[in-house]
Amino acid sequence: MKQYLKHHEWHIIEEGLDPHYNKISESVFSIGNGRMGQRANFEEEYSGETLRGSYVAGVYYPDKTRVGWWKNGYPEYFAKVLNAPNWIGIHITIDNQKLDLAKCKVEDFRRVLDMKTGLLSRSFAATLPDGKKVKVESKRFCSMANGEVGAIRYAITPLNFTAKTTLSLYVDADVVNKDSNYDEKFWEEVNKEATEGRAIVTAQTKKTFFHVTTGMQYVITNDGKKATFDRVNIELREKYAGNVIQLDLQEGKELVVYKYAAVLSSENHAKDALVTACAKVLTEAVAKGFDALFEDHARVWAHKWDGCDITIEGDIAAQQGIRFNIFQLTQTYTGEDERLNIGPKGFTGEKYGGSTYWDTEAYCLPFFLGTAEEKVARNLLVYRYKHLERAIENAGKLGFKDGAALYPMVTMNGEECHNEWEITFEEIHRNGAIAFAIFDYIRYTGDDAYLAEFGLEVLLGISRFWSQRITWSSDRNRFVMLGVTGPNEYENNVNNNWYTNTIATWTLQYTLDALNLVGKSNPSRLAEIIAKTNFKETTETHRWREIIAKMHYPHDEKRGVYLQQDGFLDKELLRVSDLGKDDRPINQKWSWDRILRSCFIKQADVLQGIFLFEERYDIETIRRNFDFYEPMTVHESSLSPCVHVILASKLGYKERAYEFYLRTSRLDLDDYNNDTEDGCHITSMAGTWMSIVKGFGGMTVKDGTLHFNPFTPDQWKSYSFRLEFRGRVIKVKISTDAVETELETGEPLEIFLHGKPVLLKK
Amino acid sequence: MKQYLKHHEWHIIEEGLDPHYNKISESVFSIGNGRMGQRANFEEEYSGETLRGSYVAGVYYPDKTRVGWWKNGYPEYFAKVLNAPNWIGIHITIDNQKLDLAKCKVEDFRRVLDMKTGLLSRSFAATLPDGKKVKVESKRFCSMANGEVGAIRYAITPLNFTAKTTLSLYVDADVVNKDSNYDEKFWEEVNKEATEGRAIVTAQTKKTFFHVTTGMQYVITNDGKKATFDRVNIELREKYAGNVIQLDLQEGKELVVYKYAAVLSSENHAKDALVTACAKVLTEAVAKGFDALFEDHARVWAHKWDGCDITIEGDIAAQQGIRFNIFQLTQTYTGEDERLNIGPKGFTGEKYGGSTYWDTEAYCLPFFLGTAEEKVARNLLVYRYKHLERAIENAGKLGFKDGAALYPMVTMNGEECHNEWEITFEEIHRNGAIAFAIFDYIRYTGDDAYLAEFGLEVLLGISRFWSQRITWSSDRNRFVMLGVTGPNEYENNVNNNWYTNTIATWTLQYTLDALNLVGKSNPSRLAEIIAKTNFKETTETHRWREIIAKMHYPHDEKRGVYLQQDGFLDKELLRVSDLGKDDRPINQKWSWDRILRSCFIKQADVLQGIFLFEERYDIETIRRNFDFYEPMTVHESSLSPCVHVILASKLGYKERAYEFYLRTSRLDLDDYNNDTEDGCHITSMAGTWMSIVKGFGGMTVKDGTLHFNPFTPDQWKSYSFRLEFRGRVIKVKISTDAVETELETGEPLEIFLHGKPVLLKK
Repeated sequence: MKQYLKHHEWHIIEEGLDPHYNKISESVFSIGNGRMGQRANFEEEYSGETLRGSYVAGVYYPDKTRVGWWKNGYPEYFAKVLNAPNWIGIHITIDNQKLDLAKCKVEDFRRVLDMKTGLLSRSFAATLPDGKKVKVESKRFCSMANGEVGAIRYAITPLNFTAKTTLSLYVDADVVNKDSNYDEKFWEEVNKEATEGRAIVTAQTKKTFFHVTTGMQYVITNDGKKATFDRVNIELREKYAGNVIQLDLQEGKELVVYKYAAVLSSENHAKDALVTACAKVLTEAVAKGFDALFEDHARVWAHKWDGCDITIEGDIAAQQGIRFNIFQLTQTYTGEDERLNIGPKGFTGEKYGGSTYWDTEAYCLPFFLGTAEEKVARNLLVYRYKHLERAIENAGKLGFKDGAALYPMVTMNGEECHNEWEITFEEIHRNGAIAFAIFDYIRYTGDDAYLAEFGLEVLLGISRFWSQRITWSSDRNRFVMLGVTGPNEYENNVNNNWYTNTIATWTLQYTLDALNLVGKSNPSRLAEIIAKTNFKETTETHRWREIIAKMHYPHDEKRGVYLQQDGFLDKELLRVSDLGKDDRPINQKWSWDRILRSCFIKQADVLQGIFLFEERYDIETIRRNFDFYEPMTVHESSLSPCVHVILASKLGYKERAYEFYLRTSRLDLDDYNNDTEDGCHITSMAGTWMSIVKGFGGMTVKDGTLHFNPFTPDQWKSYSFRLEFRGRVIKVKISTDAVETELETGEPLEIFLHGKPVLLKK
Repeated sequence: MKQYLKHHEWHIIEEGLDPHYNKISESVFSIGNGRMGQRANFEEEYSGETLRGSYVAGVYYPDKTRVGWWKNGYPEYFAKVLNAPNWIGIHITIDNQKLDLAKCKVEDFRRVLDMKTGLLSRSFAATLPDGKKVKVESKRFCSMANGEVGAIRYAITPLNFTAKTTLSLYVDADVVNKDSNYDEKFWEEVNKEATEGRAIVTAQTKKTFFHVTTGMQYVITNDGKKATFDRVNIELREKYAGNVIQLDLQEGKELVVYKYAAVLSSENHAKDALVTACAKVLTEAVAKGFDALFEDHARVWAHKWDGCDITIEGDIAAQQGIRFNIFQLTQTYTGEDERLNIGPKGFTGEKYGGSTYWDTEAYCLPFFLGTAEEKVARNLLVYRYKHLERAIENAGKLGFKDGAALYPMVTMNGEECHNEWEITFEEIHRNGAIAFAIFDYIRYTGDDAYLAEFGLEVLLGISRFWSQRITWSSDRNRFVMLGVTGPNEYENNVNNNWYTNTIATWTLQYTLDALNLVGKSNPSRLAEIIAKTNFKETTETHRWREIIAKMHYPHDEKRGVYLQQDGFLDKELLRVSDLGKDDRPINQKWSWDRILRSCFIKQADVLQGIFLFEERYDIETIRRNFDFYEPMTVHESSLSPCVHVILASKLGYKERAYEFYLRTSRLDLDDYNNDTEDGCHITSMAGTWMSIVKGFGGMTVKDGTLHFNPFTPDQWKSYSFRLEFRGRVIKVKISTDAVETELETGEPLEIFLHGKPVLLKK
């Protein structure tokens, strides 16, 4: 845990440059716009510790899988998020000395991320080895108004000299991925060109042949007027194009470099039109200018914040934390492109391949349902619909047939990207989360028609998978599910994980309900789906009903708790509080076998099921299970605390709820898990939002109606949030002594506050 | 399965060169002498499919581990058997055409391995592209009389021409390992020298710094007289030294190259003395000459065969099979060097790292007990004693303490080399095999003193491991063993594997017995061991007794069988005969999760325990377990069939026993598993020997006495073998109607035949 960032309601602030923290700050201060983004790397050269990273959404490379021992069914390739061409570089040489903060004396260093406007700023004074001192102020953003545009304003003022200076402004596609399995470079040059003032490089990814065209164009002023140069050289190297400018820096006069970037990919343009389109975007950006581009950008952010902001009174650290989470989520995924998803590191790093985990359905969907227009969440569902064929192929590789679908653990394009047998082949509850997301979306939006359009086909594929994956145990006279890994990944290859069995039979029942519903509402579409999927309605639904009726759910009568899996009680039932400091985190201190045979739980498992299907359980059942499992839970997944906030809130465990909230909301800001330098934990940020809205706010949807059972943590005065709900925007403000609800837009709506109906009208 | 090799009692014969089979033949025809060996590569250049491999015992390289996802406790390095400098090369160029069998017309190709004398011969006629035709006869051996010496007699006769010819004779240390994780070369040059007639290269392994000095010296005759050369060039390249000789090949005249090799390693010589010693070995070898060296070598083989041969009358394929198994085992491990062990591929390939698996104790020990002097088996035990400290360190990495020892799954120098969590961390029954081997050795030899000298310390370390690894289940009121992989590796991370639980408590009891025995026979040594190991006799033995008394063993009352693990009956209980042809072998056709949740068994598991502790179980219990488990067993490990031969024999299932025998004895000769090209399955060859002696021969040792309950498979007339037993050599010949036993050397001995005492006298 590190606490070097200043607390502020809207800003993330780093004062003073500590090279040891630079990679953490590069992650935290990352900026993006859903289409592209990059870590908060310096524009100038930096020979200290850094992870240079720029990313373009949807562009990936299938790196050859690396495993110790190959197992049948492993994917041959692993889709990697690609470190993309770098357009931010402004290299400066003054009197033959590079401006490199690792080699200068640096004063007044300040890095600020203004979350309100999505602006990254940096200022410092640097003294070069020979005593020359410059002041630098840079500002950078990736435009939320135009996803293909980025801009930098880089101002440099010589404080005590006038000297010959070289500026190198360029686009560089010769980048590497830190986690390349075989030290390979993934980009090849297609085209490059540079003229005075502009450079454009088109690079293509090996194997996947995505083209990305990255252009830059610059305008330089000196002391407020157009600068004059001694000389401009065109520089072209492999995968690199730029200008090298020679000029005089004049003491006391501010030289400002406006560097405009255009990043276009073949996902959105014909390959042969990329260069022309790039030039056009550049021309328009330059014509508009930095300030006007920024205004457009800030306007979009203002609109976004209107919908998704959460305010907290009385706790600046908490306020900063929740805004940081919302900011990162919002700039990672805008919901405009149904081919995209929410990568675990967003645009903040390249660790973990693929872009899509079950995190999307289980954690992110509620955030987008609550804070964005309906189509954003819908696009997340459609994304999986479009991958259905691949999920059926994926199941086929594991021996399933007749349309059974297993969605991948990790994916970019629908193909499985993961290669640990105990996860890839066995952590199949992910399939349940994808089914549940359909239910959750419809429950929230009332968009029943989604079932006929897309949902039912997905549900059929998933139910067929469960139906084949389940085994009839003659000995037990019950259906069982053998060899799975549940949400608690600190158990592998267990039998009858209660959560997985529960979500499997839930899926079967929901699919039966969905068949029924579509049959009534849209019989011709149902007939079409039955024909398309070759669905044997009688025999298949008969088996599903049998499974629902005769599923085995491990349970301990004595304690009145559901058992995480068969044999769980064979373990030594310790509590996390029994562990020594040297034992934590167990995933860094203990060998895997020791973790597996211990009772310790990585993240909610039985409790995840109770959270999803809360309405099935009375409060005392929830309490018994929470009181049994939570003390064994080490919360070593960033996805764990939020579920516990929600259940603890429900149980009235206010202090515990607040403790869990702290773990989730400032995870990256305080580098809680000592891994933020690799990038931020984007998907779990949605859990932070849920912690407030579903946890403290006690928000649920029952029978199409919003319910709130809120409380205010003792540490706060009040908190407020807005919700998008069925065409309305509702504002909720909760303080220690009152709950204020307000309908900001839309038709009147009845909601329930602490179980009592309230009619909201404008 | 391929059956291109000719059946012969003593020879392995390949007629005709089929390039598709070359790598298989290279494995099968491999030669070695316990210190070094190599695949049956051609001496001349060969541009076809080949895996060039030479190996020096005990020389390894710790290659950086490659895994997909790192887990705590994985070894950073993986000791690889090293492909060592190549000394066999004789490259021939005739009129600027290389003699390369991939580019010639080849006739009368014949490769023969004479197992009686350990001689590899090859003969062929080859027509070069321009029509020149030569006849070649080569012979090669690695001397069993002097482990550092190898020799080749390579005779070439031009049949239709006289031409300028170049011979290149060399030593080449610039070799690669096929399975290098990062395409690295593992050898560096230390020194090289070449004079006319001789070349010596010293290479060292990276990281481990083994030095291997490889020398060659040649003598060439032409038409029986010393050959004259036009010119001899010295050739020195990186890691390479040799001579290039220009001479005339004269039509009809036989040119014979005698190439002598000396291979010395720093394991046996001071590094700075290696080159001098190598030169001396070369000088002596040349002085002695090919024929005399061969005579010495063949004499050692004759002596070996005297002790270990098994003859079978009436079945040449079976005769060839068993001799091939014995031949390979004998040339892999001679028992002279207690630092060495029995690598899974011996000198026949480089697949699998490390040299030592539990195969050594569970399968190979009985072979060496039965066929070699006592010290050979004893050295195998001492090898593990010498690794005890490392085994304690290894257990420490997994969180065990106070002297608990976990022997590695795979090792070269005592350190763990394996990196699959479900094996490395969980296949802990290997520890039991190491304890059992001590018991087995003493049971067979009567060498009780071994306990005090070495055995007890190892037993204490292993028992301490079990004691810490076992968990008390309050819920069950029993001790349990969670998260293990049993011998059946088609189950991972199971609870209460019956075999593991059984061998664990057996170890605890045997250690208690051993403490008692050493306490009586050698109290001062016991005191010394207790002090050295800081053994808390009262508390530790108390816990062991508790575990023995309260261990949980899964059992099915209804069927009267032991259960392979908890929950085994949840599976769908199919039979292998229910599988389609497309399903087999399941480890190539099914994904891992499907294998895991199926009932199918890779190799004996419960039956392995019944085999080891046979005396505990009545015949009907054995029958019920065999009849339950064998039909579910796919025998996809080379170690599986032999245990089934032995149990089937005991149960009177003669036909089944013979079927299993066929699977094991000609596994490599017929390339049964389609993988012989990687090398032969050396360790399972000892299982073939056990199949005959313990299976058909029904040999057991009870209370220090040999018992035989033999039968003759219907396909055989008779079979006979010799056994070393407590200073005697006993010959046993079993035919359909009689059993002849004979004491060849040693004191009179009472044995039991079909339960009846027989006194053997000379």
